[in-house]
Amino acid sequence: MSKVRVHNFSISLDGYGTGEGQSLQTPFGHAGTRLVQWAFATKTFRDMGLPGEGDGSTDLDDEFARSWKPNIGVEIMGRNKFGPQRGAWEDETWQGWWGDNPPFNTPVIVLTHHERAPIHLQGGNSFHFLNADPATALQHAKELAGTKDIRIGGGVQTIRQFLQADLIDYMHLVVVPIILGRGENLWAGLEGIEQRFDVKSTPSPVGVIHLEFNRKA
Amino acid sequence: MSKVRVHNFSISLDGYGTGEGQSLQTPFGHAGTRLVQWAFATKTFRDMGLPGEGDGSTDLDDEFARSWKPNIGVEIMGRNKFGPQRGAWEDETWQGWWGDNPPFNTPVIVLTHHERAPIHLQGGNSFHFLNADPATALQHAKELAGTKDIRIGGGVQTIRQFLQADLIDYMHLVVVPIILGRGENLWAGLEGIEQRFDVKSTPSPVGVIHLEFNRKA
Repeated sequence: MSKVRVHNFSISLDGYGTGEGQSLQTPFGHAGTRLVQWAFATKTFRDMGLPGEGDGSTDLDDEFARSWKPNIGVEIMGRNKFGPQRGAWEDETWQGWWGDNPPFNTPVIVLTHHERAPIHLQGGNSFHFLNADPATALQHAKELAGTKDIRIGGGVQTIRQFLQADLIDYMHLVVVPIILGRGENLWAGLEGIEQRFDVKSTPSPVGVIHLEFNRKA
Repeated sequence: MSKVRVHNFSISLDGYGTGEGQSLQTPFGHAGTRLVQWAFATKTFRDMGLPGEGDGSTDLDDEFARSWKPNIGVEIMGRNKFGPQRGAWEDETWQGWWGDNPPFNTPVIVLTHHERAPIHLQGGNSFHFLNADPATALQHAKELAGTKDIRIGGGVQTIRQFLQADLIDYMHLVVVPIILGRGENLWAGLEGIEQRFDVKSTPSPVGVIHLEFNRKA
């Protein structure tokens, strides 16, 4: 059975997965880069061309970071992760944040109320725009992924919707010890969902806490 | 210099320090005992007569638990921690949850808009009812505590008020991996306070995460 997985998703101590005021210049709003600093310091993210100095760490954080990719056949992401535009597509030349050769190397399903023609890029990357609920989107993803797993790539609303629909098998969160106070809260409306999971915590030397949610058998 | 300390204060993953619907029968509301199970399993809490089986653990969790008491001269608590009554005191025979010989063995300042005569019990315990802001209450506490430290005993609102007033030097929180969804949220209105602290996390084998906030020099 293919699994539905979440990886490397950072939240603040008060549960926010992104700050307030997202834009092209500030994709995490007032959170700036504080939620993703731990990731940008790893070799895995540096190899994807993300900003930082040196070759990147290969320690505990990188072990978590790099497990995002193996055995994934499709990513499902929300429209807000794909880009800063909202509403009807005014600029169809926008092909995502990731340039001509994105790091996914699989089909990506972008959930949106505004469907458009798919985009095919190098390296096995393609973006498919779908107006569907989580269960339907997952069905499409499985057809594309074959026996491989599906990654739910975020943002906050997308992960929350899949959690609400009880469709997540494995979720790796990273708690960053900051209090953002504003933005999109991952936990809103999810009272009691921990009952479906075994939860394991692993602190990192850089100060974040890795949390793994594994669906109970 | 005496310090202002918080110990053994449990919150859910979504930041709630107590659930909704607190009463005499359900002091943590719909959270039940889920926030405090880790503590009730320790020797420190068992020795205070709290419910549980056996002698209690003496491991990592107990090491944290037992550090609540040494070198504390006074506790400051909110009125809601003292008891379930709200508004004017209708039952002055209520002397707190802790019986004739509470575990504090120091003076306790109870913050309330409704002052009443102090209560003196065995073992150096006394309750003093004070209508004051955090800074003023702390001044009173220091007069009673001499060179010893002051503990802020909770509940949520009281700790939050002392954090907002920037009066906390050390705070030990325990993150319990549950999503409560409702109740009193510790982090409300505290955006950015982590900047004042070094934060250290220590996971426990029982699944909770100990967080220590130490004020930066």
